[in-house]
Amino acid sequence: MGILTLLTDFGEQDGFVGVMKGVILGIAPETQIADITHRIAVQDVHQAAFVIGRAALYFPPGTVHIAVVDPGVGTQRRAIAVRAGGSFFVGPDNGIFTRVFQTVEEQNAKLEVVALDQPQYWLQDISTVFHGRDIFAPIGAHLVNGVALEKLGAPILDALRLEFPQVEILPGLVRGQVAGMDYFGNLITNIERRHLSSGKVNRVTLCGAVIHEMVETFGSKQPGELAAMFGTHHDLTVAIVNGSAQQALGAKIGDAVEVWLEV
Amino acid sequence: MGILTLLTDFGEQDGFVGVMKGVILGIAPETQIADITHRIAVQDVHQAAFVIGRAALYFPPGTVHIAVVDPGVGTQRRAIAVRAGGSFFVGPDNGIFTRVFQTVEEQNAKLEVVALDQPQYWLQDISTVFHGRDIFAPIGAHLVNGVALEKLGAPILDALRLEFPQVEILPGLVRGQVAGMDYFGNLITNIERRHLSSGKVNRVTLCGAVIHEMVETFGSKQPGELAAMFGTHHDLTVAIVNGSAQQALGAKIGDAVEVWLEV
Amino acid sequence: MGILTLLTDFGEQDGFVGVMKGVILGIAPETQIADITHRIAVQDVHQAAFVIGRAALYFPPGTVHIAVVDPGVGTQRRAIAVRAGGSFFVGPDNGIFTRVFQTVEEQNAKLEVVALDQPQYWLQDISTVFHGRDIFAPIGAHLVNGVALEKLGAPILDALRLEFPQVEILPGLVRGQVAGMDYFGNLITNIERRHLSSGKVNRVTLCGAVIHEMVETFGSKQPGELAAMFGTHHDLTVAIVNGSAQQALGAKIGDAVEVWLEV
Repeated sequence: MGILTLLTDFGEQDGFVGVMKGVILGIAPETQIADITHRIAVQDVHQAAFVIGRAALYFPPGTVHIAVVDPGVGTQRRAIAVRAGGSFFVGPDNGIFTRVFQTVEEQNAKLEVVALDQPQYWLQDISTVFHGRDIFAPIGAHLVNGVALEKLGAPILDALRLEFPQVEILPGLVRGQVAGMDYFGNLITNIERRHLSSGKVNRVTLCGAVIHEMVETFGSKQPGELAAMFGTHHDLTVAIVNGSAQQALGAKIGDAVEVWLEV
Repeated sequence: MGILTLLTDFGEQDGFVGVMKGVILGIAPETQIADITHRIAVQDVHQAAFVIGRAALYFPPGTVHIAVVDPGVGTQRRAIAVRAGGSFFVGPDNGIFTRVFQTVEEQNAKLEVVALDQPQYWLQDISTVFHGRDIFAPIGAHLVNGVALEKLGAPILDALRLEFPQVEILPGLVRGQVAGMDYFGNLITNIERRHLSSGKVNRVTLCGAVIHEMVETFGSKQPGELAAMFGTHHDLTVAIVNGSAQQALGAKIGDAVEVWLEV
Repeated sequence: MGILTLLTDFGEQDGFVGVMKGVILGIAPETQIADITHRIAVQDVHQAAFVIGRAALYFPPGTVHIAVVDPGVGTQRRAIAVRAGGSFFVGPDNGIFTRVFQTVEEQNAKLEVVALDQPQYWLQDISTVFHGRDIFAPIGAHLVNGVALEKLGAPILDALRLEFPQVEILPGLVRGQVAGMDYFGNLITNIERRHLSSGKVNRVTLCGAVIHEMVETFGSKQPGELAAMFGTHHDLTVAIVNGSAQQALGAKIGDAVEVWLEV
């Protein structure tokens, strides 16, 4: 029984995701299907790349991940399937797997990408607006069934990649950005614990606020206080205890974050 | 391992759907359960009929679909189970399966409906407010287990049906309605590709707006532009690229849509 | 194939729940996972205790329930696993299982609680902010796999319990509180059918409103009318037919509810 995950920006109201599950179970009836999220902000491929890149790390080898945030559906954009390390990814060729590619390259693992061009593995009737149902769901199910990646399309080396801003490391100063916000309004930055290894944190500044220390966890501060800590992936995270740092600071993705170190 | 789907207007916050899954898994532990949606507008049986009628087309034969949008729960309204073609449907007798009935009749497939009257297949303690848990979930699970439809209730021929507005086809003009809106704010009409076969589309009018051509997909237009295309089920769909046509046009279900053809 | 449920306040947008499923399926690949809800109000342990206490009643014996509403994550609060009757519960020791404990004690069933202290059953890399992924998900999966509770931690007798307000029964008068609201805006009270056995209901008062009779179900009243009935768990429930009693009455959890009986 293979495992397959779904990530989309489809929301939950229309049954679009349910329909994809119908297609998958029609081809691979015993698949374990797990939803990652269907609440990616509409057409936000960057956010989708961020979320699938992190979530995939926690699924066992062999898992097939379908990710569909696809503003270019029905145009000439390619559709791809990927083997990255031991897992599989299926979706549009729009950069949605950028962070998956980066992770596998950091690990020196094997990366193979094919452009889907074998319609016998798709639904028969292909719409121009819903490739999640017509192409990605059946391809994912065939991968669960053990169909070889090579049968699904021709290899490509130029899959599209998004630019993610880099962290800048200076003497006594690390500069990064707000990379995401979560449901609780916590601000997740692209600065990781390993970027801060050269000294003790003196202060963190973002959106006009100054935080004078790192704490271990939310419970270390009083409700309403601003706190900086290492988050779910050892990333510098700024939170308001029992509140929303996003709202309180008016923060947006891309906002500058500076960490001053005692060196 | 049978497949069972759930569609309700219960939302996700209270655990009502989780409780239904508990009842189902208690009776048929290996069931593959797929959620269609739990975000049908509260008590909107028409919307539920629209969504289950479409989603069911994509599930394999033998699937059991439970649909519960049930303003009449606990009153004299009947509860029904249906065999339509090769699949099963369970829910209140309030028209929620109208489109399922229409599809099976268009296909000249077999349709059987029973009014549920055999409490030995229900939970022991039946509330007046939650038949999803007490009647529909256990009935669906017994169908997954292979219990014959005939054992669950007596056959009926007068299951309730809702009225859906018809498309009017005139020389050079096709008149329909807005039949639904999706999560993206796209307007889905009841006019299908087959209704427009007599000529090239000259213009589409709705809510005071005029669209002068059909395009293939969203990506064929610029962000903010109004576009008409064939949607997920070959239905005429009106969208704003990267926006909400529903909001921009102030559209409601039932609003008139006219397509003028070059004949 | 064991059954495991998930209840959190994580929402659906970030993939946190998906990541927990990845961890679970990595350890126990054939687990039947059912979501109870991920929409508990943020950090509302009382609401979580209310919902898991009720939902668990409808799952078959042997089910493993993971519940994570955890303001104290990363602090000294303990993590626990519970065997209550025939089922298992995993989560923080913050009172989230108070109603589970009460139910098992009312049934004179066996209750065992261990404080989790065996990191070989956790993920290797434990964050201070996401024990749902790092501790509770793997522990739940090991329980599905049949690992004995005793192996996971040392027994404790002092698991934290929340206070829930009690119903006061006087001659001719029963006093309780609003205990919860559901998605529809129905008000669920802590007064149950058994509390009202000493006489016929004369009137129900709450939030300045007076209701002069109990009805069987929603359909017994006209749209817009206030109605009192016994709800999904035989609890006195106040609803507005086709509306929200919560909004109409401005009701909050803890508001007084009085039922006057004809004795």
